[in-house]
Amino acid sequence: MAERTNRRGRPGYDLDGLLDVAVQVFNERGYDGTSMEVLAGRLGITKSAIYYHVSGKDELLRLGVNRALDALFAVVDEPAATTGPAIDRLEHVVRRSVQVLVDELPFVTLLLRVRGNTRVERQALSRRREFDQVVSDLVKEAEREGSIRPDVDPALTSRLLFGMVNSIIEWYRPARGLRAEHVAEAVTKIAFDGLRSGPA
Amino acid sequence: MAERTNRRGRPGYDLDGLLDVAVQVFNERGYDGTSMEVLAGRLGITKSAIYYHVSGKDELLRLGVNRALDALFAVVDEPAATTGPAIDRLEHVVRRSVQVLVDELPFVTLLLRVRGNTRVERQALSRRREFDQVVSDLVKEAEREGSIRPDVDPALTSRLLFGMVNSIIEWYRPARGLRAEHVAEAVTKIAFDGLRSGPA
Repeated sequence: MAERTNRRGRPGYDLDGLLDVAVQVFNERGYDGTSMEVLAGRLGITKSAIYYHVSGKDELLRLGVNRALDALFAVVDEPAATTGPAIDRLEHVVRRSVQVLVDELPFVTLLLRVRGNTRVERQALSRRREFDQVVSDLVKEAEREGSIRPDVDPALTSRLLFGMVNSIIEWYRPARGLRAEHVAEAVTKIAFDGLRSGPA
Repeated sequence: MAERTNRRGRPGYDLDGLLDVAVQVFNERGYDGTSMEVLAGRLGITKSAIYYHVSGKDELLRLGVNRALDALFAVVDEPAATTGPAIDRLEHVVRRSVQVLVDELPFVTLLLRVRGNTRVERQALSRRREFDQVVSDLVKEAEREGSIRPDVDPALTSRLLFGMVNSIIEWYRPARGLRAEHVAEAVTKIAFDGLRSGPA
């Protein structure tokens, strides 16, 4: 498959298309286990055709994890996440994060598997911690406002809450027809009101 | 490092010691990314010294994931998991599973990262599904008994519940002094009674 062939109009890739495939391959084989050769083979284009779009593998990783992070940070900037009682803002962030995870599943999967071996990965981890801090602060605020039970530690609570949310990448498969709103509804019901049915 | 040296009393490994190191290396590098050479190097013994204990890498994987699975299945056989109202049995299973995750952290981490590429991995996935089924059945039963809200899907609920529990492997670090009972308490409070404080 000569590069020439691609330039002449084999179904080519724009940056988004390239990124979709790269992220899929990273998720299947691990970022460390994916070489530019493997990527090129999978895309059916040459390595130089990839370098036409990006400076290398780590730029693909950066673009991939930032797509997830940007979507999550957009959520915490939404009006419903910035005004009103803290518990409602927290519930909004949880609900919308579920939606982001479902909508951007491969990108969030990539993000959540980052371990911090490279500069790009460490930057991603640092932005993740920043997001976690926003959530943890909301839990604290809701506790101060008296709308969250005072006997749970805010940091532990936000970890468990997003542990539940993030588990979506492990078991959610779009093909099975379960809608994001349904998952978001279940998460918020369980986490905010609990499984136990109220007094009969 | 000649094998002879090991046989003459360099700090040797029994099977448990060998398994501890192997599982740690699998978790760091991925099972696929770990060769017997790498294992031998890390253990400071020869490959044949490893073969003295196990038939190969996949036996180490099998022993590792089974340690986690056996501990989890022991939980669902405990009296408090088999008699009494379903909601109490479910709460017991959740609470004790948190304890197992904390106690057997490296082994459960290995188990939860298994993707099903080999026969041993597929067997592990099959036992995991069996465990999930027990949990899902408990949720169903509790719903029939009227002790769990009827508006959450049992399969989705058990996934989210154990999504929260399993997230422990992502953030729990024994060195930080957070005790398993404390985590278990937080999980059961959030999942069963919800974060929202009761009516004032």
